[in-house]
Amino acid sequence: MNFSSKILEEAVNQVSQLPGIGKRTALRLVLHLMRQPANQTDVLSQALTNMRHDLKFCKNCHNVSDVDICEICASHNRDKTIVCVVEDIRDVMAIENTSQYRGLYHVLGGKISPMDGIGPQDLNIKSLIQRIQNDGVQELIFALSPTIEGDTTNFYIFKQLNGLEVNTSTIARGIAVGDELEFADEVTLGRSILHRVPYENSLKN
Amino acid sequence: MNFSSKILEEAVNQVSQLPGIGKRTALRLVLHLMRQPANQTDVLSQALTNMRHDLKFCKNCHNVSDVDICEICASHNRDKTIVCVVEDIRDVMAIENTSQYRGLYHVLGGKISPMDGIGPQDLNIKSLIQRIQNDGVQELIFALSPTIEGDTTNFYIFKQLNGLEVNTSTIARGIAVGDELEFADEVTLGRSILHRVPYENSLKN
Repeated sequence: MNFSSKILEEAVNQVSQLPGIGKRTALRLVLHLMRQPANQTDVLSQALTNMRHDLKFCKNCHNVSDVDICEICASHNRDKTIVCVVEDIRDVMAIENTSQYRGLYHVLGGKISPMDGIGPQDLNIKSLIQRIQNDGVQELIFALSPTIEGDTTNFYIFKQLNGLEVNTSTIARGIAVGDELEFADEVTLGRSILHRVPYENSLKN
Repeated sequence: MNFSSKILEEAVNQVSQLPGIGKRTALRLVLHLMRQPANQTDVLSQALTNMRHDLKFCKNCHNVSDVDICEICASHNRDKTIVCVVEDIRDVMAIENTSQYRGLYHVLGGKISPMDGIGPQDLNIKSLIQRIQNDGVQELIFALSPTIEGDTTNFYIFKQLNGLEVNTSTIARGIAVGDELEFADEVTLGRSILHRVPYENSLKN
């Protein structure tokens, strides 16, 4: 693109570094900001800078938090004997939105993925094992995405639990509520038959 | 969404003010920045702030520029007797990319649109008339989008030219190069027949 201004070009280049945003979209966003009061851009810049420098992670579960121990870990209403292992904080938000889970979390910060150069030492696995050893955790729920990387990570953690007294479970895989059977992929459909649940149980929710 | 951090929530809220970016996308962008070096966020924030405060518009044609008179207006290689009227600076960039136009531009900053509360006084029309009166402009090319608002704006400016000695033209409407005839809409196809050009002319490019 042929910019008539270096300042504009720099702004567009920086915005287009964000994932999923190309040069054209970046230009559209930047021109939108130009049409808004200068104040909006200042608040946006400040919010991003604050976020990047002041955001902390909970020392216990690695969820984002403004304090050392996050609200969930600090709450007296949560069951501290159950820990749900998730990939990142978006998964915590998704599960919290269901209002179905009253235990704690552990945010790994990713999945084991040799292709992307991410090994076990890059994830918060050590601190998870320490929590299980020291905090009286009785059940560990694996809630990673059902991909090869997710399954590998689950299995790696499972192996590390050797000798520790803790039950493990994974979230149920099956046909999504409201989905048509005929459009489900065969692996999911197959598992949903293998892991069928007593009909009375399905009435509870 | 249920944020465990006010700082994160503020950043996501600000980013989601941008057009076409919802809360989920904003969260994805913000978490991406968290995974990058802090430096990247600082540079992005700084570029946006600089852009909003330091970007200037050419005093002649209202194109963005880092100086008072933009490169195009200041160039000695451009034909100053032709002015192309466009809606915004993206149109200038698009036409410049074709390398087919050697005249000057005039950026209106929008189109007349009563529905959006945009009247002639909100656009750079007065300065256009002044340029025509004072700068020896001989041809005015209307290059607005072929919408009702674009046509209205063209006609309004055309009326303002009453008594001024200047030729007017609009960019050609027709079947796009490479397009299939059968898929063209009938208005475009009809115009392309009405405004047919001598075959020898079409060979020039």
